[in-house]
Amino acid sequence: MRYELYYWPTVQGRGEFVRLALEEAGADYVDVARGSAKRAGVPAMMRFLEGRHLERPPFAPPFLKAGRLIIGQTANILSFLGPRHALAPKDEGGRLWTHQLQLTLADFVVEIHDTHHPLGPTLYYEQQRAAAKRRSKEFLAHRLPKFLGYFERVLQRNSGGGPGMVGTRLTYADLSMAQIIAGLRYAFPSASRRALASCAGLCALHDEVFARPRLKRYLSSERRIAFNDDDIFRRYPELEG
Amino acid sequence: MRYELYYWPTVQGRGEFVRLALEEAGADYVDVARGSAKRAGVPAMMRFLEGRHLERPPFAPPFLKAGRLIIGQTANILSFLGPRHALAPKDEGGRLWTHQLQLTLADFVVEIHDTHHPLGPTLYYEQQRAAAKRRSKEFLAHRLPKFLGYFERVLQRNSGGGPGMVGTRLTYADLSMAQIIAGLRYAFPSASRRALASCAGLCALHDEVFARPRLKRYLSSERRIAFNDDDIFRRYPELEG
Repeated sequence: MRYELYYWPTVQGRGEFVRLALEEAGADYVDVARGSAKRAGVPAMMRFLEGRHLERPPFAPPFLKAGRLIIGQTANILSFLGPRHALAPKDEGGRLWTHQLQLTLADFVVEIHDTHHPLGPTLYYEQQRAAAKRRSKEFLAHRLPKFLGYFERVLQRNSGGGPGMVGTRLTYADLSMAQIIAGLRYAFPSASRRALASCAGLCALHDEVFARPRLKRYLSSERRIAFNDDDIFRRYPELEG
Repeated sequence: MRYELYYWPTVQGRGEFVRLALEEAGADYVDVARGSAKRAGVPAMMRFLEGRHLERPPFAPPFLKAGRLIIGQTANILSFLGPRHALAPKDEGGRLWTHQLQLTLADFVVEIHDTHHPLGPTLYYEQQRAAAKRRSKEFLAHRLPKFLGYFERVLQRNSGGGPGMVGTRLTYADLSMAQIIAGLRYAFPSASRRALASCAGLCALHDEVFARPRLKRYLSSERRIAFNDDDIFRRYPELEG
């Protein structure tokens, strides 16, 4: 079965967490909104979102078409893909724990995003610069070390020995964790270096993930969109203080 | 099996979405941090969160102890409870869709919370009043109608006929939806009346949920914490504009 992924074509965004899982799984998928065929591109995605006849419409991209299923919400998509592609344990406790980590990563991503959009998604960054500076200062001083410290602890306590946070094999949550570390290094190069100085495990996990043969190929392909400042992770030097 | 719910004892917060599901299910549970016994209260909860020997520590409350499982993240807890207590469909498509709705409700809750905390959780409201006013204005003008319009559409399109958003029976997502409507009416009485004027289905769903015999008893019991201004939903008249 060929999956269809629907996400904005010019940013990594939340879709990237799904792309990384699909790539590591070697899954057959098409990134619909990046296509140029007649039934592709952003118009094809918008037809889905705005269609009047879809009984179960997603609120926003990303969403994944898997046969007759249309699955929205990043963490939900990953919880669907995980056990199918050996990117999550199959036992109930392991599945719930992996999903719990993913949801905590999603909370982390919201706070990272909100450093440049504290007044919400309806205003441009340029309209909320002063608030963004204050929020970033709080985030870098308190929240960034808190989240990273938590995930480092989780990694250290994994009785399965790793290389990831759950059991003995990498999971989709590890791929997302590595992507967040890469994004933090892009957005906040100094602050993330300081915060990651005490997170040797997470740094090793990042390297392990992006050294996987399939992900290495993906990163050097045109399918990987570069970090950019319309995205979740933005390098605005004035926010690093 | 007696569940143990761990959550802050003086607010509804995110724990309330779990409490409502447990109450509607008639489940046997103890709200640990509200207890006064030796092994209860907030200290018992903090021992869990800060314990050095817990292999899979939650990042934050709420979390649920179910036998040997410790499950964190509100939506994750509900996805565990749902199929066990007839509060979610058992088929894969129905389960994923209910969870997707819950995750979209969780996004909605973040935006509601951030109306009074746009600069993040590390500052008091009083330290971010001006930013809160701007964020609330945007939220009430654009985001509130967008979210409510979405869920009203979902409800209308449910081919199962309801009374909720999925199939023919209420799900945990419906309980959460009703709780959010109640909270919005508390926090933003005028703005939510205007926004809900075009959401007859959601208003009926709210009434249906809180007329359920078990939830009716719960709401009039001491177990239900009243809305209050240390919580997600806060009535700050200056934010209603």
